[in-house]
Amino acid sequence: VSSARPRGRRPGASDTRERILAAARERFAGVGYDRTRVRDVASDAGVDSALVHYFFGTKDGLFVAAMELPFRPADVIAPLVAQGMEGLGERLVAGLLGVWDEPANRTKLLAILFAQPGGSDALREFVTREIVGRVAGAVGDLRANLVASQLMGLIAARYIVRLEPLANLPADEVVPLVAPTLQRYLDGAL
Amino acid sequence: VSSARPRGRRPGASDTRERILAAARERFAGVGYDRTRVRDVASDAGVDSALVHYFFGTKDGLFVAAMELPFRPADVIAPLVAQGMEGLGERLVAGLLGVWDEPANRTKLLAILFAQPGGSDALREFVTREIVGRVAGAVGDLRANLVASQLMGLIAARYIVRLEPLANLPADEVVPLVAPTLQRYLDGAL
Repeated sequence: VSSARPRGRRPGASDTRERILAAARERFAGVGYDRTRVRDVASDAGVDSALVHYFFGTKDGLFVAAMELPFRPADVIAPLVAQGMEGLGERLVAGLLGVWDEPANRTKLLAILFAQPGGSDALREFVTREIVGRVAGAVGDLRANLVASQLMGLIAARYIVRLEPLANLPADEVVPLVAPTLQRYLDGAL
Repeated sequence: VSSARPRGRRPGASDTRERILAAARERFAGVGYDRTRVRDVASDAGVDSALVHYFFGTKDGLFVAAMELPFRPADVIAPLVAQGMEGLGERLVAGLLGVWDEPANRTKLLAILFAQPGGSDALREFVTREIVGRVAGAVGDLRANLVASQLMGLIAARYIVRLEPLANLPADEVVPLVAPTLQRYLDGAL
């Protein structure tokens, strides 16, 4: 039997992992984040859904791996929200700066943001569901939208447009400037 | 004499205008906004600087025409700032929503934002100097940076990521949500 795959060698975990990631990238780019189902990715890759879950956890973990995000947003945001409403504005901005001030993270995140437009519907849906959605679970959609607006704007001003002096201000000086905005959006009078 | 240009016809104003715009686009893409000089664009286009000023006013007008921005930011921002600090937060967010809620403007602005990366250094410098700079003239750089962060974030959340319900809230309901943030950044306790 003629085959491209060397005989006598069984596909290893890393082949399978890569095949799942390739299938996931295609699904996410094609139908977005929300409409991609883990079982469809598994089927495209010719594996059982259980194996996808074994490697990547839930759908957000699969997306994080497929897009090579430097971390799983849920891992950062969920613990901050779990500590309660008091001081959450401060924790959110400090958490965001902690991630983005790290040069390796920033390089990866900017590359993803400015990647081919095909990826952006999926990214937008992922951000909406897995980042904004986690704050919305605690304070409702509109307040979470407003929080997201200030945090995305901080990313734009500090890391993309690189406005001076904001771009070079130490994180611990940025936190008290922005935290009151977030706290009002979270639980203040609107 | 053989020539591609039809004999007996002299180049009109619109040929000259287009030649200046082509030269401007090349300069802006090559060296950015700050380092582009009107006289260099004129020289590239083979015309006198006075003619560039006659057609486009100052450098920001040339950039607006070259990028086909739907309006000149200075024309929107300067009058708002000139009315003084009181209520400026409200006027700025209402002004921004007035521009971006207009579908024709939004389509053009999004196309420019997502255009080829070559244009983005120039756009970043233009935003820094002609938009943020005009607010900075009134309140200083850091406060203007913070104002810009919330306004850019509002653009991202409402028009790019299109978070619900913020994306479909009437402008007059968005204004009171965001104006207090801007007013604190402008003249509040930081």
